[in-house]
Amino acid sequence: MRKTILWMFFTLISLNLSAQSQRLEEIHGKTILLFTPHPDDDVFGAGGTIALLNRNHNKVYIVVYTNDNKGSYDPDMSSERLARIRRAEQEASEGLLGTPKENILWMGYDDGMLEYAPQPKLTEEATAIIRRIRPDVLLSVDPGEWYERWHKTDHRMAAFNTIDAVRAAEFWLYFPNQKLQQGLEPYRVPEMYFFYPAPQEANYWVNIESVADLKLEAAAKQVSQFEPSVTKYRPDWDAKDLEKAKAEMRKEQPRKDGHCVEAFRYATGFIQY
Amino acid sequence: MRKTILWMFFTLISLNLSAQSQRLEEIHGKTILLFTPHPDDDVFGAGGTIALLNRNHNKVYIVVYTNDNKGSYDPDMSSERLARIRRAEQEASEGLLGTPKENILWMGYDDGMLEYAPQPKLTEEATAIIRRIRPDVLLSVDPGEWYERWHKTDHRMAAFNTIDAVRAAEFWLYFPNQKLQQGLEPYRVPEMYFFYPAPQEANYWVNIESVADLKLEAAAKQVSQFEPSVTKYRPDWDAKDLEKAKAEMRKEQPRKDGHCVEAFRYATGFIQY
Amino acid sequence: MRKTILWMFFTLISLNLSAQSQRLEEIHGKTILLFTPHPDDDVFGAGGTIALLNRNHNKVYIVVYTNDNKGSYDPDMSSERLARIRRAEQEASEGLLGTPKENILWMGYDDGMLEYAPQPKLTEEATAIIRRIRPDVLLSVDPGEWYERWHKTDHRMAAFNTIDAVRAAEFWLYFPNQKLQQGLEPYRVPEMYFFYPAPQEANYWVNIESVADLKLEAAAKQVSQFEPSVTKYRPDWDAKDLEKAKAEMRKEQPRKDGHCVEAFRYATGFIQY
Amino acid sequence: MRKTILWMFFTLISLNLSAQSQRLEEIHGKTILLFTPHPDDDVFGAGGTIALLNRNHNKVYIVVYTNDNKGSYDPDMSSERLARIRRAEQEASEGLLGTPKENILWMGYDDGMLEYAPQPKLTEEATAIIRRIRPDVLLSVDPGEWYERWHKTDHRMAAFNTIDAVRAAEFWLYFPNQKLQQGLEPYRVPEMYFFYPAPQEANYWVNIESVADLKLEAAAKQVSQFEPSVTKYRPDWDAKDLEKAKAEMRKEQPRKDGHCVEAFRYATGFIQY
Amino acid sequence: MRKTILWMFFTLISLNLSAQSQRLEEIHGKTILLFTPHPDDDVFGAGGTIALLNRNHNKVYIVVYTNDNKGSYDPDMSSERLARIRRAEQEASEGLLGTPKENILWMGYDDGMLEYAPQPKLTEEATAIIRRIRPDVLLSVDPGEWYERWHKTDHRMAAFNTIDAVRAAEFWLYFPNQKLQQGLEPYRVPEMYFFYPAPQEANYWVNIESVADLKLEAAAKQVSQFEPSVTKYRPDWDAKDLEKAKAEMRKEQPRKDGHCVEAFRYATGFIQY
Amino acid sequence: MRKTILWMFFTLISLNLSAQSQRLEEIHGKTILLFTPHPDDDVFGAGGTIALLNRNHNKVYIVVYTNDNKGSYDPDMSSERLARIRRAEQEASEGLLGTPKENILWMGYDDGMLEYAPQPKLTEEATAIIRRIRPDVLLSVDPGEWYERWHKTDHRMAAFNTIDAVRAAEFWLYFPNQKLQQGLEPYRVPEMYFFYPAPQEANYWVNIESVADLKLEAAAKQVSQFEPSVTKYRPDWDAKDLEKAKAEMRKEQPRKDGHCVEAFRYATGFIQY
Repeated sequence: MRKTILWMFFTLISLNLSAQSQRLEEIHGKTILLFTPHPDDDVFGAGGTIALLNRNHNKVYIVVYTNDNKGSYDPDMSSERLARIRRAEQEASEGLLGTPKENILWMGYDDGMLEYAPQPKLTEEATAIIRRIRPDVLLSVDPGEWYERWHKTDHRMAAFNTIDAVRAAEFWLYFPNQKLQQGLEPYRVPEMYFFYPAPQEANYWVNIESVADLKLEAAAKQVSQFEPSVTKYRPDWDAKDLEKAKAEMRKEQPRKDGHCVEAFRYATGFIQY
Repeated sequence: MRKTILWMFFTLISLNLSAQSQRLEEIHGKTILLFTPHPDDDVFGAGGTIALLNRNHNKVYIVVYTNDNKGSYDPDMSSERLARIRRAEQEASEGLLGTPKENILWMGYDDGMLEYAPQPKLTEEATAIIRRIRPDVLLSVDPGEWYERWHKTDHRMAAFNTIDAVRAAEFWLYFPNQKLQQGLEPYRVPEMYFFYPAPQEANYWVNIESVADLKLEAAAKQVSQFEPSVTKYRPDWDAKDLEKAKAEMRKEQPRKDGHCVEAFRYATGFIQY
Repeated sequence: MRKTILWMFFTLISLNLSAQSQRLEEIHGKTILLFTPHPDDDVFGAGGTIALLNRNHNKVYIVVYTNDNKGSYDPDMSSERLARIRRAEQEASEGLLGTPKENILWMGYDDGMLEYAPQPKLTEEATAIIRRIRPDVLLSVDPGEWYERWHKTDHRMAAFNTIDAVRAAEFWLYFPNQKLQQGLEPYRVPEMYFFYPAPQEANYWVNIESVADLKLEAAAKQVSQFEPSVTKYRPDWDAKDLEKAKAEMRKEQPRKDGHCVEAFRYATGFIQY
Repeated sequence: MRKTILWMFFTLISLNLSAQSQRLEEIHGKTILLFTPHPDDDVFGAGGTIALLNRNHNKVYIVVYTNDNKGSYDPDMSSERLARIRRAEQEASEGLLGTPKENILWMGYDDGMLEYAPQPKLTEEATAIIRRIRPDVLLSVDPGEWYERWHKTDHRMAAFNTIDAVRAAEFWLYFPNQKLQQGLEPYRVPEMYFFYPAPQEANYWVNIESVADLKLEAAAKQVSQFEPSVTKYRPDWDAKDLEKAKAEMRKEQPRKDGHCVEAFRYATGFIQY
Repeated sequence: MRKTILWMFFTLISLNLSAQSQRLEEIHGKTILLFTPHPDDDVFGAGGTIALLNRNHNKVYIVVYTNDNKGSYDPDMSSERLARIRRAEQEASEGLLGTPKENILWMGYDDGMLEYAPQPKLTEEATAIIRRIRPDVLLSVDPGEWYERWHKTDHRMAAFNTIDAVRAAEFWLYFPNQKLQQGLEPYRVPEMYFFYPAPQEANYWVNIESVADLKLEAAAKQVSQFEPSVTKYRPDWDAKDLEKAKAEMRKEQPRKDGHCVEAFRYATGFIQY
Repeated sequence: MRKTILWMFFTLISLNLSAQSQRLEEIHGKTILLFTPHPDDDVFGAGGTIALLNRNHNKVYIVVYTNDNKGSYDPDMSSERLARIRRAEQEASEGLLGTPKENILWMGYDDGMLEYAPQPKLTEEATAIIRRIRPDVLLSVDPGEWYERWHKTDHRMAAFNTIDAVRAAEFWLYFPNQKLQQGLEPYRVPEMYFFYPAPQEANYWVNIESVADLKLEAAAKQVSQFEPSVTKYRPDWDAKDLEKAKAEMRKEQPRKDGHCVEAFRYATGFIQY
């Protein structure tokens, strides 16, 4: 494709942020689509931003690639039970941030196995979602440089698959049956924000000061992912454990210019240079 | 699975047809689900029966595995255009038989390539359809003995994949996310009729005398599949060609005891012995 | 391969049974290797024969392809729990027939998913087992004619994969690393008996009269595969249910010349014509 | 595809052999394309016919799917050496039958691994060969009923893949780049003869009396496939061994009405019913 | 492989450019092989260099991985038509640069789907091309650091697959049938230049001043990849649009020391450190 | 998984090396598990460290992913013979370093084809090894940044697959049959050292001064990987060639603070940031 000619000349620095019409935290009444590898990365990576977007009357959709049904040390846990737990926790967590349960779309892949999902079927499915939701803004996990080290896991696959789908969604001849048989028209995603960026590549920060506590509350709904529940499942918090978990998350929360922030890499095209 | 113990003892002949509560052509107000490899096999193989079922106020759904986008000799045809043509023809054809357009579900696979679709993803998709529609009666193409010769094509794959899905649909631990995340409950298909059976295996005949002409009309809507349109596409019939095509189909139409019939293999379980 | 020249001329009937040195039920002190798709097909299909073989001081190994972790209607069942149950039932069942627990080899594939296991890896694994155990007699599920109808399931895959492995085991250039790195020498399986044959293809019957009750006992250890446990799991039998199940199995037990028998298709080469 | 309507009505018997313009053994100056799984099945299955076709000044091409590099019991054999041996033997063998070495096309797949070759890439390659050679007559191994038993090997894959390619070759929208980029036009194969048919399905016999000895000579060139060379490789025959091998082959040679014949299943379309 | 010992000690900087016998732009009478993901990346990335190489009477071959049949926004475009258009544009474009049409080799993969092509079949095909052409110099798209971001597309796959093939081509035991059956000998590529390098990794610049206008002319032949043709196809340029496109390309053309240049990463071995 | 929250905040620098209880070269009586792509990378990359570990009475296991059966320029070499040679060389080489032959575990994949091994089967196999050996320390090839350039080879696959297995080994719900059927309990690897690190990422150096000569001796046992044996195989060294090879290796041996060292990247968790 001809677009590649640009590839040679642009650098990261040259990305024209001024082209951006509006701050993410200020948009109203738009459609937002977020792709997350597991039910919780959305909250940990962009929970404050999600809360702000919901508060501003945007329509937020969360697509969850996997069912997160393996990450427990509890020998009595089963994969079906963990999937059930994770779904309820995610609905509670996103619910606190203002996202209604029916806006959470589960792609239903097994935890830790996204890399082995049939390709390009996976891309086709994500493409159909984009063409149906037609988001004004897309959020996704960053397919950044370090992903190669955190390699071969759901994170990397979710990251790359989502931008593959962004590219495919744009040209109707990719997966043409989506138009011919299901009536889905091609769609060009105008703006993208990637959470979990490599520090040196983050180029956009959302001030989440006003919703920082809410984010902690929401994150804490993912009980099964914290000690002691991750080792021996219990559905609720002991007050002391909860306090400790929140304190730790508070400490880990990135700050910039004295404010709690969430970091993103902002981009406007599928060629992520 | 224990069910296999039965396998050893039963023979084709022993299939107890008397267990069948009601003749297919007489059921009313039920949900019918038909799987077809291409948009036309449903009409050629069971068009009369579909017409009778619709006339009897059943709710008929047609699942089409492929988009049939390759079977043309026209050098100016493109696959996207052929898919578009085939969809319209199928809607017209099924429309004549009484099936509304919105009840036709397109799985969207490429013609002649179903065998190469990612497994078990394909089974998972058909399973979800069965669990959602929850049919009282399922019709499908026969995965019979001769399929091995008519091998490696969409027919065989559609046949086997559908009964795989019938089996999977029954046990919730197959594709458990369909229940855990999408709320789809397991479902046991009570009755199955397979069209295009091997002659010596057909065990059920529907008298379609009353809708025989309608079936011919419906079949003739699939213009692009007949000469001369299959060689050089034209969207309509020349009167003479139409007459010839109908005459040929009329001649080929199987008869039993002096009546036009459609032949099926009837079964009640996924173990098809 | 040249062996194929034979293919043209032989027929089923010409299989020279007289070449067989000894009746299966009379061999002593030999090594027997049985491949079964699920933990129970060995018992249902050849349980009496296994008991006789053990009684005659043969060394019997049972290779189980899948863990049978999906065939339950119990909504509270999980796949991990079912696998655990099925393993215990199989050990109890085979234990009654005289096979020690350590002779049961679990290949560990998911129930209903054997068809999707990576090929030819699956063949390579079965080949290594044959080359290591070096059986005098191999039993396996029949890859017979009707398998095409009971298609796309573990049964067919287990059947075909086992004879594929029989062929591969014979020539060291198949999977040569098994010899070069693991020291496994090629091995030619001299005799094979296939259980679950198509009725018209059975050519060998073992009289299991003397162990018929034991076989029923053993089969009944697979509690979770019978009603009511298959619908709502309970680990034990209600006396009445047990009696009913046994009665049903007794009725289904094939008989020949007035004796309880188990039917097989006997063969001496991997070309199964 | 509409062609399937025919499927229901025709039977094996109804195949109209009288439609055939000319006996296979009498055609002159035509292009013949034969697909064989291994380098020797062509000779064993149709060697006499090949000799007659060459004698009649037809242009015969032999496509060999695999390199036959595993079927030796010799512990000192390597796969590369066996492939080299098999190629030379095949060239000598076909050379005797009149086929020049440059008309032997090697697809280059590993012995016993054709089933695992990437699909539909394999079909695409065979399709390109058909579209390039444009044969008046195609010979191939029979994808017949018994193949399911001799399953999962190169024979079955070669059989099914070849008729898949016959179908695909006919419609340009299958593998359209073969036309768009390589200039290969679609092609309809008019006549097909399948060797190694199931006895009850053979419907065509070629009298090879006049070349029966030549066929034996040619078959004997495949030294490495016979005892003692298959067990401990030697490139030549001991006179006694050769005589024994020929005698055995002579005995196995099918006869009909007192003549040496080669049996085929004749067909004119890719729908092999 | 032992070669890896080097891996630990060398750094990018240590690459000994002085080892290079001759400037790329000065070689004469050699064989050049260029791999490009799409029909146009060769022109955009190395068009000036290709023109110089042709002018110097080298034999230039262009291998095009994909048919580029999806990158159009035109709703009336079909994939077959776009492939036809792209082929003609590429022939016109390379023709201007001096490469004859018959030196353009089309691998024929679908646009955007190279990542899903069967592996290692794809490597095998590229290996055969290298072993047949036996280039003195190989040019390819850079499998550089940033490719991970421009991930999962034809660019990355083409880049990695080409150097995989360079490695495989060197040792005859990779794809040995290429030697044993097709007579292709192993070949060691002595020099490689990668176009589209990451800026900080470029280590070689070709001065294309003398052919800069010709390159623009050639690039402009790829009409369908520029506005307005990419949105609504038209086969020719409106003079104003052409001028604008050229101006834009001229502006984007990289310069070094005041000259138009094309940047490369130069390497001499398949271990690209 | 919740662990990912950490991802955002940590940097390479922050890796707390002081947490490390003991220097690698000083541990005694522990279990060490090393994964190597080929039989020699262990010696070249960590041979001195292996010698020290063996000297300190640790139990060292070497897992070799591939059989290294292709990397020879000798036209008379076969893949089976090379595999046999490589195994013997590796046993001699590791023997000198103190590792007994029975502690070398061969996974048996073909050289250069690890990338195409069935996934996630490959991960499952490595996971089983970790769960069985239960190492106190794991060594593996580095899945570092530059691997993307040295891409698509066994090195990268071995690197990523090993850390995938480290992650999977920790949670029993990954490959649960390893526990349910084979009795393998989950296991958390406490410490990891990656050899062949990118220079700027090495964070740990083992002083191998005292075993430097031994390492050279051991490396020299891999005769077939050095000139002249790599070009024309001979099983032994000419004295002059050996001296030259050792001199070259001595020169290449990294040094730090005046000592011979082996460089590693040290890590304690599978999230390799």
